[in-house]
Amino acid sequence: QSVTLWGRLNTTVESQKIGSLDRKMVLQNNNSRLGLKGSEDLGGGLKVSFNLEHGFESDTGAASGGTTFWNRQSNVELSGSFGAVRLGKWFPGSYFAVPDYVSMHNHDTGTSSDALYAYGDFPSSNKVAYFTPTVGGFSSELSVTAGEGTTKRSLDAAVNYDMGPAHAGFGYQKKGDFNQFAVRGLYEFGPLVLGGYIQRAENTFGGVKKNWNVWRASGMYVVGQSEFHLNFGKADNINVNDGAKQLTVGYNYNLSKRTKVYGFWTKVDNQAAGTYFPVSGMKAGQDFSSLAAGIRHNF
Amino acid sequence: QSVTLWGRLNTTVESQKIGSLDRKMVLQNNNSRLGLKGSEDLGGGLKVSFNLEHGFESDTGAASGGTTFWNRQSNVELSGSFGAVRLGKWFPGSYFAVPDYVSMHNHDTGTSSDALYAYGDFPSSNKVAYFTPTVGGFSSELSVTAGEGTTKRSLDAAVNYDMGPAHAGFGYQKKGDFNQFAVRGLYEFGPLVLGGYIQRAENTFGGVKKNWNVWRASGMYVVGQSEFHLNFGKADNINVNDGAKQLTVGYNYNLSKRTKVYGFWTKVDNQAAGTYFPVSGMKAGQDFSSLAAGIRHNF
Amino acid sequence: QSVTLWGRLNTTVESQKIGSLDRKMVLQNNNSRLGLKGSEDLGGGLKVSFNLEHGFESDTGAASGGTTFWNRQSNVELSGSFGAVRLGKWFPGSYFAVPDYVSMHNHDTGTSSDALYAYGDFPSSNKVAYFTPTVGGFSSELSVTAGEGTTKRSLDAAVNYDMGPAHAGFGYQKKGDFNQFAVRGLYEFGPLVLGGYIQRAENTFGGVKKNWNVWRASGMYVVGQSEFHLNFGKADNINVNDGAKQLTVGYNYNLSKRTKVYGFWTKVDNQAAGTYFPVSGMKAGQDFSSLAAGIRHNF
Repeated sequence: QSVTLWGRLNTTVESQKIGSLDRKMVLQNNNSRLGLKGSEDLGGGLKVSFNLEHGFESDTGAASGGTTFWNRQSNVELSGSFGAVRLGKWFPGSYFAVPDYVSMHNHDTGTSSDALYAYGDFPSSNKVAYFTPTVGGFSSELSVTAGEGTTKRSLDAAVNYDMGPAHAGFGYQKKGDFNQFAVRGLYEFGPLVLGGYIQRAENTFGGVKKNWNVWRASGMYVVGQSEFHLNFGKADNINVNDGAKQLTVGYNYNLSKRTKVYGFWTKVDNQAAGTYFPVSGMKAGQDFSSLAAGIRHNF
Repeated sequence: QSVTLWGRLNTTVESQKIGSLDRKMVLQNNNSRLGLKGSEDLGGGLKVSFNLEHGFESDTGAASGGTTFWNRQSNVELSGSFGAVRLGKWFPGSYFAVPDYVSMHNHDTGTSSDALYAYGDFPSSNKVAYFTPTVGGFSSELSVTAGEGTTKRSLDAAVNYDMGPAHAGFGYQKKGDFNQFAVRGLYEFGPLVLGGYIQRAENTFGGVKKNWNVWRASGMYVVGQSEFHLNFGKADNINVNDGAKQLTVGYNYNLSKRTKVYGFWTKVDNQAAGTYFPVSGMKAGQDFSSLAAGIRHNF
Repeated sequence: QSVTLWGRLNTTVESQKIGSLDRKMVLQNNNSRLGLKGSEDLGGGLKVSFNLEHGFESDTGAASGGTTFWNRQSNVELSGSFGAVRLGKWFPGSYFAVPDYVSMHNHDTGTSSDALYAYGDFPSSNKVAYFTPTVGGFSSELSVTAGEGTTKRSLDAAVNYDMGPAHAGFGYQKKGDFNQFAVRGLYEFGPLVLGGYIQRAENTFGGVKKNWNVWRASGMYVVGQSEFHLNFGKADNINVNDGAKQLTVGYNYNLSKRTKVYGFWTKVDNQAAGTYFPVSGMKAGQDFSSLAAGIRHNF
């Protein structure tokens, strides 16, 4: 059969603290998902493939982010020597090329995911994209979101480069007044992997155009089945005292290629007017921290 | 294993025009779906089978028509030499016997689907049905919808006939004041296939019983992997100036049995008070047209 | 592949009567479901496994009990010689150990399910549990629900014992003012199986602490492919005249291991102030009865 069913359960038990409120114990989903994919060889180098991907809350069983079931992917693609054309829904290429790539400790999911990167409106539905073939280590994606008369069109571009231990990426996104670009690098020094990005974002607040920078550095050190992680990010002020810092320390123990148990400590430090919120229900200026232990299983 | 996972992704990029509004680019789902089916041989000619079918918007990933997941099928069936008895949810037999059968260019889906056929309330949930065995080319389905105390019971009947290149169908539906019957024919003249139907519908509007006719003719010409399609329908007035015409010209290129790329131009011409709307957000009397290019992949 | 897709369709046609209202014909779901499960051997006796389980209304195709898709299970588990630790969502162990175990005629589903057992709030989301290994026929589960700052923590404990034809169970649950414990027994006398439970529940009503008993007895007699069932339960008064009795007589004909056709007659007899409702839309004191015929197919 041509269909593959795959997925991931990623659940932590966390002791979370918001501002000066009491710590609470929380069962936390870390972007669990279920996917269906398939492809058909059409001959002459041509191939059609599809992806359906459902994100769900592993702690409650609900679809992530509302009632849309295939909230991560729903697309069909025709590919060949010319590259590929894809129609439907999927996450922006600029996201995978930059913040997701360097968030090595837990796939940029859950409370220790990148809270600072400027996502814009994260356009994923109603997209048409062209993917270049990989040439000399370079591959690119250019996608346009159909405005459909009610919302503004958005544009997303990504370039990835891979050559041996060296990896780099570039992302660009534009929708209305918001636009951002970012560069990312990552290098594998044997058991030590170091990565990072710098992002420049621009948007309009109260009629005034502002721009700001976000940067992040991350490192992983591998010893046998163990991984030690450090991840630090900083978002500059947009207006006054609204920047933030984020620090995560993590440890993974790989029980197999597909399964790990892990722990992390993460903290987001908002300035007085900062609104970088890893969980809902927070107010401007509140910090967030969490101590977590969990299990991730890919199937 | 006894379970088969199957589906279809069918997505177009369309330039749509409503009335005198600006054309807009739209990514359009054409009734994409995902199904699960299975059966068990019980011995003695007896068989049990089930069908679960989920329709989804391939452009956004949401379940089609609201939050019900298995919005196309959810049923279990016991079959044998006596025919079959089925319980649950599925689309009316009268629909498959008539409008769906002659809408050859794109499975009666999306903006070029039959906008004129009188569907009644399209009863699909809470049904019990009896299916006859196929005898002499004839097969029939009779289904009743449990009123469950709150809604009126509805009745749906369908007969299909297949003998070599000749195919015919009959559909009947009744719920409350609404009832309709229709006859359909289709003949394969080698590479040329011609079909059509005539429908007579009756309903009550403002306390007055009215009836009206709908008819449609369609043709397909096959050359190698190419299909050329023409489809024309007309709905008579129910009251005054509320009829409509629909014309679709289509071209399919079959990359394989399962995958095609295609294009079509479709137009619905509403009279001043006509309300035949291929997409939501239209007003009485507005025309609709769309130029579309897309890909359909069955898996 | 490591993933198993499984499920059950269980649908009846019923003639239901509420209080003195007219009988009505209803197509009734009996807890139909669809599941995904998988496991990975991690070596050294360690295993990881997951369960995703979706309950749906087989008569309409909607997710059971709202819009949460994986409304029955969503969990991941690490197990070994020490027992197992599980994180996520699943039904209380005390439920499977007690009322579900003795409801033999139709898996404690639909209108003939146990309407009297005191469920508390049936905590299933945000759970952490420890399962003991099976020792000397005994196995146990202890689960805690993370309060997550907004709801009270709940605790659920279950013990099961199996030794040849003898089976026993114990369940305990506590959340806020509600708590309950129950003991269950079941014995297989060849083709005759007899079971039952006694439950003691306590809760606060209008500021006053009350406790009450629920008990149930059930029997099955097997002849060839036929099963004859009798099931009787009684809930004592909590306040005044608010108890109820429930009687079910059932017959199953097993077409195969996976498929049965069946019928039952069930009645819930509420006292004047009783509110034990097998279906929605009932009022205090109303009785409910149903005559049902249906089919259940496991896949």
